[in-house]
Amino acid sequence: MAEREKYLLDESRIPKAWYNINADMPVPTPPVLHPGTMEPVTPDFLGVLFPMNIVMQEVTSERWVEIPEPVREIYRLWRPTPMCRALRLEKDLDTPAHIYYKNESVSPVGSHKPNTAVAQAFYNKEAGTKALVTETGAGQWGSALAMACSFFGLDLEVFMVKVSYHQKPYRRIIMENFGAQVFASPTERTHFGKQVLEEDPDSQGSLGIAISEAVEVAATSGGKKKYSLGSVLGHVMMHQTVIGLEALEQMEMAGEYPDVVIACAGGGSNFAGFAFPFVHRNLTEGKKTRIVAVEPASCPTLTKGRYTFDYGDAAAMAPIVKMYTLGHTFMPPGIHAGGLRYHGMAPTVSALLANGDIEARSARQLETFEAAVRFSKAEGIIPAPESAHAIRAAIDEALVCKKTGEKKVIAFNLSGHGHFDMTAYQSYHHGLLEDFEYPDHAVEEAMTHLPQVPGAESKAALIVR
Amino acid sequence: MAEREKYLLDESRIPKAWYNINADMPVPTPPVLHPGTMEPVTPDFLGVLFPMNIVMQEVTSERWVEIPEPVREIYRLWRPTPMCRALRLEKDLDTPAHIYYKNESVSPVGSHKPNTAVAQAFYNKEAGTKALVTETGAGQWGSALAMACSFFGLDLEVFMVKVSYHQKPYRRIIMENFGAQVFASPTERTHFGKQVLEEDPDSQGSLGIAISEAVEVAATSGGKKKYSLGSVLGHVMMHQTVIGLEALEQMEMAGEYPDVVIACAGGGSNFAGFAFPFVHRNLTEGKKTRIVAVEPASCPTLTKGRYTFDYGDAAAMAPIVKMYTLGHTFMPPGIHAGGLRYHGMAPTVSALLANGDIEARSARQLETFEAAVRFSKAEGIIPAPESAHAIRAAIDEALVCKKTGEKKVIAFNLSGHGHFDMTAYQSYHHGLLEDFEYPDHAVEEAMTHLPQVPGAESKAALIVR
Repeated sequence: MAEREKYLLDESRIPKAWYNINADMPVPTPPVLHPGTMEPVTPDFLGVLFPMNIVMQEVTSERWVEIPEPVREIYRLWRPTPMCRALRLEKDLDTPAHIYYKNESVSPVGSHKPNTAVAQAFYNKEAGTKALVTETGAGQWGSALAMACSFFGLDLEVFMVKVSYHQKPYRRIIMENFGAQVFASPTERTHFGKQVLEEDPDSQGSLGIAISEAVEVAATSGGKKKYSLGSVLGHVMMHQTVIGLEALEQMEMAGEYPDVVIACAGGGSNFAGFAFPFVHRNLTEGKKTRIVAVEPASCPTLTKGRYTFDYGDAAAMAPIVKMYTLGHTFMPPGIHAGGLRYHGMAPTVSALLANGDIEARSARQLETFEAAVRFSKAEGIIPAPESAHAIRAAIDEALVCKKTGEKKVIAFNLSGHGHFDMTAYQSYHHGLLEDFEYPDHAVEEAMTHLPQVPGAESKAALIVR
Repeated sequence: MAEREKYLLDESRIPKAWYNINADMPVPTPPVLHPGTMEPVTPDFLGVLFPMNIVMQEVTSERWVEIPEPVREIYRLWRPTPMCRALRLEKDLDTPAHIYYKNESVSPVGSHKPNTAVAQAFYNKEAGTKALVTETGAGQWGSALAMACSFFGLDLEVFMVKVSYHQKPYRRIIMENFGAQVFASPTERTHFGKQVLEEDPDSQGSLGIAISEAVEVAATSGGKKKYSLGSVLGHVMMHQTVIGLEALEQMEMAGEYPDVVIACAGGGSNFAGFAFPFVHRNLTEGKKTRIVAVEPASCPTLTKGRYTFDYGDAAAMAPIVKMYTLGHTFMPPGIHAGGLRYHGMAPTVSALLANGDIEARSARQLETFEAAVRFSKAEGIIPAPESAHAIRAAIDEALVCKKTGEKKVIAFNLSGHGHFDMTAYQSYHHGLLEDFEYPDHAVEEAMTHLPQVPGAESKAALIVR
């Protein structure tokens, strides 16, 4: 009897509640600060950008938050996603390790992003919102929100980081197919965009800049447009936990439990979504799973950044949060993993790293593509360049097992496929890709632009619950 | 309790045998003729192009042919594929009909093509073949065979129809990612390609020309390279029947049985794969399911072509078969459904249509894209332009039910996703797509180039079993 390749759950097993790690944080997450006053923000302030039902979800400390039935109904289009045993990759690596991957690439737009996009569109619809505005890096978030807005009949404007707008035209077309308007950021549509273009007409954009543009449009719309964020914030992390909650059930089906859990980390949402339910088991049941976040060496937020208060966006208009950051003025090189080019990291993920509950490592661009091609030749699926970071780490862990003979169980999140990133693969195969190593002095320089938060230490000690 | 969206089968339920319709054909399929002598071919002749294990499979009349375990092992990477109830589309159409679709887009390369690619690569490997050569239209077949050859360690050369080579660069990159060499056909690499380019240096190619090039390379390789075909032939149809066999089980799970079964038809492989197991039930159990093949109005093989003997390729080098054909000199317009631009049709599909066991209809390009966009806005998935033909027909059937109030069960095959066809969607949304109607006089003209087969009538009466 051949070994099993896939662990499938019936759609009745889609989780009925999201897991909110705020209920179990071993250390407090410092408060969100107003970018002007640098004092903790009130729900009213957040209410300019988000509908109140989402604001309340952002600050709740309930451990389990019920998933509304209309959201589960849409999840059923592709969820539960398969948990796969990478038997052919194991064989190719000649490793005694067991490698599992959660396949989030099966969603209609090819990534984990719809898990929160659908929820956010639903809550906005409930709150009477007519139009949303957002930013997107590689376009995975933008296409997910475009689909979700189409399902709920909401208008959508997307500020897409310029380098990705040109590198990944198919993702733009997907957004347009679902009825969204897409702009290459920086644009002339906002004050901040104009300012950036004045200083550098050739600016390729960054997620920080695109966020500033989207936030500006929402904040100056007189309440007509709400803002939607695809990562970083607490409610986004929480919506993504359907991934890890399903994975826990599927590992049980497989009769194994992971020794190592791996996901790539840009803003932190697919990492949190996959890993937090395992962190929960570590925190509450004494499990000892290693939890590893993998980021690009060219945007090494967790491995070279500082854990401090910083703006969420480049224009210093978004709230200030305590997080690992490379500085909000950080301008990442044009690597292909566009979804991992954010200067900061989700406050929850940051706090867990600072507290030693999770690990972080970085991977260089070329070694991630090498891993991606190896994975595709074994398993067929061509992964997103972002997900390739998790694959790199999983392969490295499996190769250590090959040396030591340890039969570890390794589980990683395949956050998306690379169907819209094929030009990146072409560049890789033609030897045109480079490794970018983020220089240490750049971190030092960027830190001089951090906001000077009065009483930062005592603020960090506050708990937002 | 919400209605069920997906019917999933455990991987242990992947069929153990393919269904061979030759065992049940209500009318004989006329023999395959040698393009030179016009006499029935011997296995030796086919043996120049194909390994003998595939030749034997082509001529067998066994009803059930065991699927080798190494093939099932690879099928398990993505099979069984989901059978989905299009609840949201039904609601959008406000129809009493129940619409189901078999989702073949979940394979790693995004279509049904790997079902036969993996089998063909396996049999070639078994037979000692080191290198394969093939053609591809839209690139779905080429990428499937490239993946399969990578799995089994075979070299691969692909002649890709030039118009698709340029329209769908991502598919070329996928093939290259899996190690295949891809050429825009017509090329300078073959005598026939040179001849075509001499007559028309701007030739955009056709599937018929690309087949001729691939066949020429294999036939003149001194046995070093074997040819592989992604449609039309009997063994290809048979390999695809895993689709319909799974679908039968899934319809049983759903507690319904289709009144109408629909698939698009180019060479016939996804149609046969989905429909033949239902045809089998019609033929042997007295079921009365309508079986509908949908083709482009611009390449109306079944609806305007003639049922007669014709060459399988443009150069008149490939065997002659009795099929519905627009003439091997047919040059299709550059529509986006590149997989449906073949001048002929599988002999089994043709014979069934001629005998009245199945129906055929055509759809114009614009109405297929309209259906595709509507489907994507309801179900999330962006379909391949080929599959959009099946969706068009399914929607039309459902709209008839809306008028009549009939609660029909409609099942169609979603043969692939459109991730590599996004420029076609862009053109559609920008109003740049055209409808092409194939002119009647062109059929008449093309028929004058048909091979003059001596004793065609009596040959047609032979049975190959």
